[in-house]
Order: sequence, then structure tokens, then C-alpha cells
Amino acid sequence: MGELVLAADLGGTNVRMAAIGPAGEIVHRVRRPTPLGSDPMDIVNAIGEMANQCRESVGAERLFQTFGIAAPVIMDAENDIVYKAPNIPAINGFHFNRELAKNLALSVVLENDATAAAIGEHWLGAAKDVENAICVTLGTGVGGGIILSGRPLRGPDGTAGEIGHICVEPNGHPCGCGSWGGLEQYSSATAVVRIARELAQQVDSSEALELTAKRLFEAAKSGDEIAIEAFRRMGYYLGIALAGLINVLDPDVIVLAGGLSAAWEVFIDETLDQITKRAFRLPVLRVKLVRAELGDDAGILGVARLAFAAHDQGHLES
Amino acid sequence: MGELVLAADLGGTNVRMAAIGPAGEIVHRVRRPTPLGSDPMDIVNAIGEMANQCRESVGAERLFQTFGIAAPVIMDAENDIVYKAPNIPAINGFHFNRELAKNLALSVVLENDATAAAIGEHWLGAAKDVENAICVTLGTGVGGGIILSGRPLRGPDGTAGEIGHICVEPNGHPCGCGSWGGLEQYSSATAVVRIARELAQQVDSSEALELTAKRLFEAAKSGDEIAIEAFRRMGYYLGIALAGLINVLDPDVIVLAGGLSAAWEVFIDETLDQITKRAFRLPVLRVKLVRAELGDDAGILGVARLAFAAHDQGHLES
Repeated sequence: MGELVLAADLGGTNVRMAAIGPAGEIVHRVRRPTPLGSDPMDIVNAIGEMANQCRESVGAERLFQTFGIAAPVIMDAENDIVYKAPNIPAINGFHFNRELAKNLALSVVLENDATAAAIGEHWLGAAKDVENAICVTLGTGVGGGIILSGRPLRGPDGTAGEIGHICVEPNGHPCGCGSWGGLEQYSSATAVVRIARELAQQVDSSEALELTAKRLFEAAKSGDEIAIEAFRRMGYYLGIALAGLINVLDPDVIVLAGGLSAAWEVFIDETLDQITKRAFRLPVLRVKLVRAELGDDAGILGVARLAFAAHDQGHLES
Repeated sequence: MGELVLAADLGGTNVRMAAIGPAGEIVHRVRRPTPLGSDPMDIVNAIGEMANQCRESVGAERLFQTFGIAAPVIMDAENDIVYKAPNIPAINGFHFNRELAKNLALSVVLENDATAAAIGEHWLGAAKDVENAICVTLGTGVGGGIILSGRPLRGPDGTAGEIGHICVEPNGHPCGCGSWGGLEQYSSATAVVRIARELAQQVDSSEALELTAKRLFEAAKSGDEIAIEAFRRMGYYLGIALAGLINVLDPDVIVLAGGLSAAWEVFIDETLDQITKRAFRLPVLRVKLVRAELGDDAGILGVARLAFAAHDQGHLES
């Protein structure tokens, strides 16, 4: 008699899995490094072993036959293969769903990690009880998940929500996606370090050249002018992109998640300033800009939610 | 025994009204200049008279008790008043719905004109039979209407879809909305004329100073280099904004409407080029960029659709 679901978050560095209850309670957790080889079955097998660990710990009889997994992928839904997995190239073009279902002997619900995080924050976190939310993950890159009328926006290709690739500077910095001047090139952890380096070179200070985003945040709090200016620019471009999204989508809440959101205090004033100046007054009065509440668990909770819903509806991919 | 609805499109210049059948057939039309005085009741009374003209022509007994009206307004839904009507200031803060319902003795469905046009094109025009469409109206300004999963996106404030106010140039030209560098400042008829003027002054040619967008289009077709470059820039910024929307919304179709879309042949190559270079490949392969099919009737057909739906559902504002 089931009561829990298994949910996992496949990242470029770690796989995290948990057995999760219907109110989002995390009953048991396991974690291991993501297999980095070229064989996608290594990842499938690792996830299978983690599932067995969870089964042993909580008791297999307590688990529903549904498994949710968040992954940094775009699926080719038509052919049920991974279309694009920039950080986990081994699973590119792979029947990931199908192999997971076979190995785990469970029905699998796979969701893009940014969308999963938005679903998690909407279920139990900073976007709880609202109809329309945008979740922006500020990390190595900039990810996005959108909830409209209470439902995740995926688009027919599953590519919707790519907020990190909105253009904010028409002749700006090149991006791995093939474009240039996108938000990710200005408001990610990678970008803020690059901006600080560029500024440091301008003022001929070699000190700033070995920065990480975390050190840069400390420097900004200590009053370092380069660090302060780098975060101001990061917040400036974030504000430009969010103002556009506010004008187009009229959200109730914008949730900032990801590692760089910890530096909130050194960029948020500039972000709010740009939003207030640039977006229409009515939706600006409505929208709340808030920090994520679920941290690293947002994705895993999001797919747990989907796994419960799939179980309830009996609409299972397998 | 009803079979038709009355539908109107209130513009800054003209009010157009028609009696429309369930398949979108326009049975009778009337039109008159928009009353430009400061008394909003002049507009209500004019619409009431037009409704009576239609009743007389088609026979009042053939009309359902629902009236759809498209208007360039943002409604304050909570207080049921017009929040913002930049081109028709007389109705700012006015109980427009209520007074129309009283005067016409009909249930009134009011929709923002750009959203109404998107609904019309989705019902009977260039976005027929698709789930996800973006309709961009290129006119004096740049308007937008969005259909997601077959339904219009309005947002809780009714302000969603303001595509003309996506930032495409962070330090760009100021806009009446209070922001600067928005799409409307680069890809509207007003903007393309301004851009041509700026270019003409740079090359010290006074000839180009009395341009309209229409003349500019003729000039571009005749090989005028300034006109060609002005439309290239107009198409460039349109491409930047649309690439962002493709990455965020993953639409099936983008419909270009409005007077300036007639100049399609002199800007679309640059727009497509920017989209192809800047947006993700998968949604770019899906999306079709097309011209609107319903011309000036898109809005009136869109609200006719809403009036029929309201009649069918019995959910009527009155």
C-alpha cells in the first residue's frame, strides 16, 4: 500500500534522490556523484541502485509505482529521446525515460530541471498559493520555469521558459547557445565574475582576477567598488529581462533561485529599480520579487509532485 | 431566436461595428468616427446608435443578447473601470462596461484590442488550428496578443501580452510608457519613420524628412538606401524580441498584423535572420512566422467569438 514516491534530481555534478510523502515530506535521501563517462547506462544503473537503497530504507511496499526525475535536458517528445543535455552529453539522443522505466520497474515522469524547480516552489515554496509565477535560477547559467494559471508552461517542444536566453544587450557577449547578449551572459555566476574581471582590467587591478562569484559577493559586502559595480550590472540586466517578462506575462510572483540568489542583497536594489522604471505600473504593483524557499530541494519536490499527480491520474509514462 | 452577435472595435479614429454569424460571417457593418470629446457618454451613445442601426438592418430578433467590444484599453478588473486608455483618454477611469450594458441593454464582453485580434486570427485567420500563437500588431505602436494552449493569455491584471514594451536596446529611445528602448520604439510605423529621419540627417539629406511609413516602404522597394536600412533596423529589433519570445513561450505561430506588416517584404529577411541566429533551434524549427489574414476585422471577429462563447456558457458580464 503506497504512500511515498521516489523522486530524483540529475545534475551535472550529483544525482540526488529521495522518498517523498504526499505533503512533500522527505522521508529518506541518497546522493552520489553523477557518472561522467560516455555510457548513458552508467547513469541509469546508478539511479537504479539509488532507488534500491531507498526501497530498502523505507520499505518497498510504501512506495507508489511512479518515479519523478528532474534533469537539465530538453526532450524530443515526439521520439521520446533526450534532444539536448548540454551538461550531461552522455544522454544526448538517449531513450532515457524508457531505460529508466525498465531498470527501476517504475513509471517515469521526467521534467526539465528549471521547470521542476518552478513546480516545487509553486507547490511548497515561495510561489505557493499563486496562479502565475516565474522562477529564475541564477547559477552557472540562468534557467527559468514558468507557471501560468497554476500549470507549468512547457510549450509544444518542451523548450518554453528559457529566460536565460532573452536578449538584453543586442551586441553583447556570445553565449554557448549560439546567440549573444542573452541574460545568462550578464546575470549568471559565471557572468558576474567575467564582468568583475573586465572591470578590474580596466582599472588595472590584478587582484580581482582570481574571483569566484562567492568571493565577489564577500568583496561587495566589504565595499569593494569593482565587486559592487559587477553586481549592479548583473542586477541591471536581470531587471531589464524581468521587466519584459512582467509586461508580457503579468505574473503574481517572481522567484529567484540558484546559488547566486544568495547574493540578493548586493544586486536586488538595481533589479527592482529597473523593473519599476521599465515595466507597466499595474503589473509592477502586483508582482512580488522573492527569494526561493526550497533551496536544492525545489527540483526534487517538483517532480515528486508530478509523480503523485501521475499516480492519481493514472496517466503514466512507462 | 438569436443567431448573430453584435461586435465592435473602438479605435482612436473610428468605431466599427458588425452583426456577425457563428462562423464569423459579417452580415452587416456600420462605422463612424470615434467621438473625440471629453465626455465618455458620447462614445457610449454613438455605440448605442450604431447598435440600433444594426438591429434595424438585420432584425433585432436575430441578435443574441451579447455584445463584444474590442478597445485599446487595460481594464481594472477589480473595480470594473478602464484603468488606462492612452488613445481614448475620455474613458479613463470610466465604468465603460456598465454604461455600455445599460445603453445597449445587452450583456457586454470587453477585450483589449490586441488580445481580441489574436483571438480573431486564432479563430479564423493565420493562427487557425494551432494551440500556441503570438500576434504582433505593427502599427502606430506595437501591440501583442498571446494564445497559449488555445486560450488567450490575459494575466491577473489583464496587462499580459505587451510585446511592444519588451526592451530591445537597454539605453534606447524613450517611450510614452515611461521606459526606453522597447520594441515599439524600433519596430512601429512611427519608429521606422524616426529611424529614417535620423539616418537622413546623418547623410545630410533633407528629402527624407517628410516621410510616412507608407512612403518609406515605396522608397525601400525602389532601392532607396536610407529606407532599406530603416526597415532593416526595424526588422532587426523585431527579430530580437521575437527570438526572446520563442525561447520563453515556444509558440507554433507568430502572426504579424497591423498596417506596417504590409511592408513585410522589406523587413522580414532581417527578422528571420535574427530569429534563426538567436533563438533555440528546436522551437525555431517549429514556429511559423506569417502575415495576419483578417486585416482590420481581426479584432471585431475576436470579440464576436467571445460574445458567442459568453452566450453559450451563460457567463455574461452585464
